[in-house]
Amino acid sequence: MASIFTKIINGEIPSYKVAEDENYYAFLDIAPMQKGHTLVVPKREEDYIFDLTDDELAGLMVFAKKVAKAIEKSVPCKRVGIGVLGLDVPHAHVHLVPLVEGNELNFSNPKKQFPKEEMEACAKLIHSNL
Amino acid sequence: MASIFTKIINGEIPSYKVAEDENYYAFLDIAPMQKGHTLVVPKREEDYIFDLTDDELAGLMVFAKKVAKAIEKSVPCKRVGIGVLGLDVPHAHVHLVPLVEGNELNFSNPKKQFPKEEMEACAKLIHSNL
Repeated sequence: MASIFTKIINGEIPSYKVAEDENYYAFLDIAPMQKGHTLVVPKREEDYIFDLTDDELAGLMVFAKKVAKAIEKSVPCKRVGIGVLGLDVPHAHVHLVPLVEGNELNFSNPKKQFPKEEMEACAKLIHSNL
Repeated sequence: MASIFTKIINGEIPSYKVAEDENYYAFLDIAPMQKGHTLVVPKREEDYIFDLTDDELAGLMVFAKKVAKAIEKSVPCKRVGIGVLGLDVPHAHVHLVPLVEGNELNFSNPKKQFPKEEMEACAKLIHSNL
């Protein structure tokens, strides 16, 4: 069965898309740790990030770098942190989290919620800064 | 001034070395979130991971993958998580943390301490599984 992220990539489930190329896709986390929190995924469904081929992993991170630089221009922050757990959705994904105070990359923190319009505007802004 | 990680790479400060190649270096975090918690750094000193060149970033992650696979063979865990904050030491570093329960990748958790002999044995075991 297709993962939820594959359904997002295929447009079967809507997402706040930030960036896309042939092999990778980036969209806002709907339960963000911080405004601008983005998920970056390979289009090829692979559960564990370290089971991607070297080329896929390298490409994913270079794509994530491009997205992170756009997040920095869009959300006031010190820098963008990286988190990968991968125990929830069996489709490798990189969390890019703007570090404002510095402690925002914490999977135990209560998740934030922003109105649809704010999420749309945020995704659009990051996309425009790519 | 050389960063603490450059001093570790140069052997001026001792470390529990796990892996090394021409461009990257991996060693046990001395204040680990979990046994086997490893730091992977580029030898070229660059503060922010997303300021590495694309090639450097790609190489860092492919090197980290090799180390993560060796950690998995050495420390019983579900998989190895990735964390990058980078607000403490101004030399880019990737945290590789064995996820046992799943909640170990949390920079707010109290850090663990293991005796020197246990750290040495752990580094040696991971190295032997490369």
